[in-house]
Amino acid sequence: MGDAAGISPELTAKLLAVPGVSDAARILVIGDRRVLEAGARVAGVEIVLGPLVKSGEPPRFASGKPSLLDLGSLDPAAVEVGVASAASGRFAMENFRTALVLARGGAVDAICFTPFNKAALKLAGNPYEDELHFAADVLGHAGPCSEFNILDGLWNARVTSHVPLARVPALLTVESIVAALALADSCLKQAGVARPRIAVAALNPHAGDGGNFGREEIDVIGPAIAEAKARQIRADGPYPADTVFVRARRGGCDAVMTMFHDQGQIAMKLLGFEYGITLLGGLPVPVTTAAHGTAYDIAGKGTADPSATLRAFRQACAMGSARAREIEAA
Amino acid sequence: MGDAAGISPELTAKLLAVPGVSDAARILVIGDRRVLEAGARVAGVEIVLGPLVKSGEPPRFASGKPSLLDLGSLDPAAVEVGVASAASGRFAMENFRTALVLARGGAVDAICFTPFNKAALKLAGNPYEDELHFAADVLGHAGPCSEFNILDGLWNARVTSHVPLARVPALLTVESIVAALALADSCLKQAGVARPRIAVAALNPHAGDGGNFGREEIDVIGPAIAEAKARQIRADGPYPADTVFVRARRGGCDAVMTMFHDQGQIAMKLLGFEYGITLLGGLPVPVTTAAHGTAYDIAGKGTADPSATLRAFRQACAMGSARAREIEAA
Repeated sequence: MGDAAGISPELTAKLLAVPGVSDAARILVIGDRRVLEAGARVAGVEIVLGPLVKSGEPPRFASGKPSLLDLGSLDPAAVEVGVASAASGRFAMENFRTALVLARGGAVDAICFTPFNKAALKLAGNPYEDELHFAADVLGHAGPCSEFNILDGLWNARVTSHVPLARVPALLTVESIVAALALADSCLKQAGVARPRIAVAALNPHAGDGGNFGREEIDVIGPAIAEAKARQIRADGPYPADTVFVRARRGGCDAVMTMFHDQGQIAMKLLGFEYGITLLGGLPVPVTTAAHGTAYDIAGKGTADPSATLRAFRQACAMGSARAREIEAA
Repeated sequence: MGDAAGISPELTAKLLAVPGVSDAARILVIGDRRVLEAGARVAGVEIVLGPLVKSGEPPRFASGKPSLLDLGSLDPAAVEVGVASAASGRFAMENFRTALVLARGGAVDAICFTPFNKAALKLAGNPYEDELHFAADVLGHAGPCSEFNILDGLWNARVTSHVPLARVPALLTVESIVAALALADSCLKQAGVARPRIAVAALNPHAGDGGNFGREEIDVIGPAIAEAKARQIRADGPYPADTVFVRARRGGCDAVMTMFHDQGQIAMKLLGFEYGITLLGGLPVPVTTAAHGTAYDIAGKGTADPSATLRAFRQACAMGSARAREIEAA
């Protein structure tokens, strides 16, 4: 369960009430029973729970009925609906941390969370710049990992992310781009895309126009694509950043690899990314969430659309199953 | 008339055949009679011309019927349809140069051209990196000027354009941003937007997140917006680049000022900019064209859509009239 003051409790309840969801996985809801019940009231749904697990107890799972790990951490009456607070942020943070600790111990195959609120997390003293760093740290993961944005089957990955634009060119190396492509390729495969086609965006206007407006395409991105191809990754490009998403929208590829944050985000947000999902990929466990936020303005009204949360849940199921099969086979 | 091998002759003919166009301005078509006639045949339209002007003669204009300045420069039989050539590029280049020379002499109030082909221009030895530099040079204009992209009433302007991304941060100064805002403000007003609202994009992801991912928003863009406001320019921001166009699409502003080329182009192309128009603004004479290209793949088929060319023509009329009124009043 994500932030308690926004639409997360309602979304959690609506998700659990979707026919088939309880059979798609052995679910453990992590949060507080009272917050979940409040969410169900707002959502206007009834949830039939399975085993109730108390804080500190080992998790139990059942088929067909979601278990609840009740941390007893928050009385919803203590949180003002639609207002960021330390309490609502701490609730989300501790639920997430608990899920990650369970994953680290091998008890869960995938994690899906309902929206967090950045301001509330800050009030709660969250020291991480984003969920990816939070998760990597708790999981003790030092290898490559990345945020992926997924909308209607189109993935967007990036070589650099939350850094000043001025630092981007120096961070683009053959190694960093090949590593990003290899990670995207592997995550797409884990998600069931057998032979992922990745279109790579250029850095400079008109892809550098043959070196007239910058040489990164010639000196770095092109060689990185060649190196990725040599490793059997179906990467292609570099394509001008202002047409690569037009091509992708027509179905020309499974993923677009962008060189920096806004290159992809400008496109994805215009394409309707509020209905998309975010995947934290490359971690020992797949973590997914809806792309939209806590929507404080409509919290408590029962009007929140659970479809992105449902898609995030299905993505977690698919990737978690693939992972479990891999582990079994190994 | 633009490039002779693509859809430009057809578009020119289709434009002239649109009811009302011949009454909207005193039109001088610049090109070759044979190319225009070939375009009319492809378009399946009949054009009733007014005065025929020969190369070297002073232009004559008539109301209700377009004049033709026949440079006698190209036999369409010498050009292969759908193939870039020096001949088709030279034709476009010389037509444009002639229009600009006439404008410099005060004979025309606005210029609208049908699409050029970059490859053909290169084959023809065109030394300019884009039409803006071409026009500024022929017009002897050394002051500020800029390309504007316009789609359904939404303008996109930029502080930097055809430069390597790595050079962008250094090119952003309070002065360069204020100059770009002042130019956009003045062009929007010339186009009839009485009190233009300009949303300014940030440079860094999440608009720098309060300085965490770059300081240009705090040190440069913010102060530039304040300075513009002090000059009665309705600038606002800086807004994260990945949401500024979502806001703009909802009608939140008349123009978006982007910091670099692709920031705006990624968005405008996804929004359907092939139906939009490009304005070269800030020159002594407004110059407009359709945003799309020469479409060699459909050249000669008669299926080219003239609607963007019609919009470019109307924009030239509106701005040319405003300019003529200004000159008269002065």
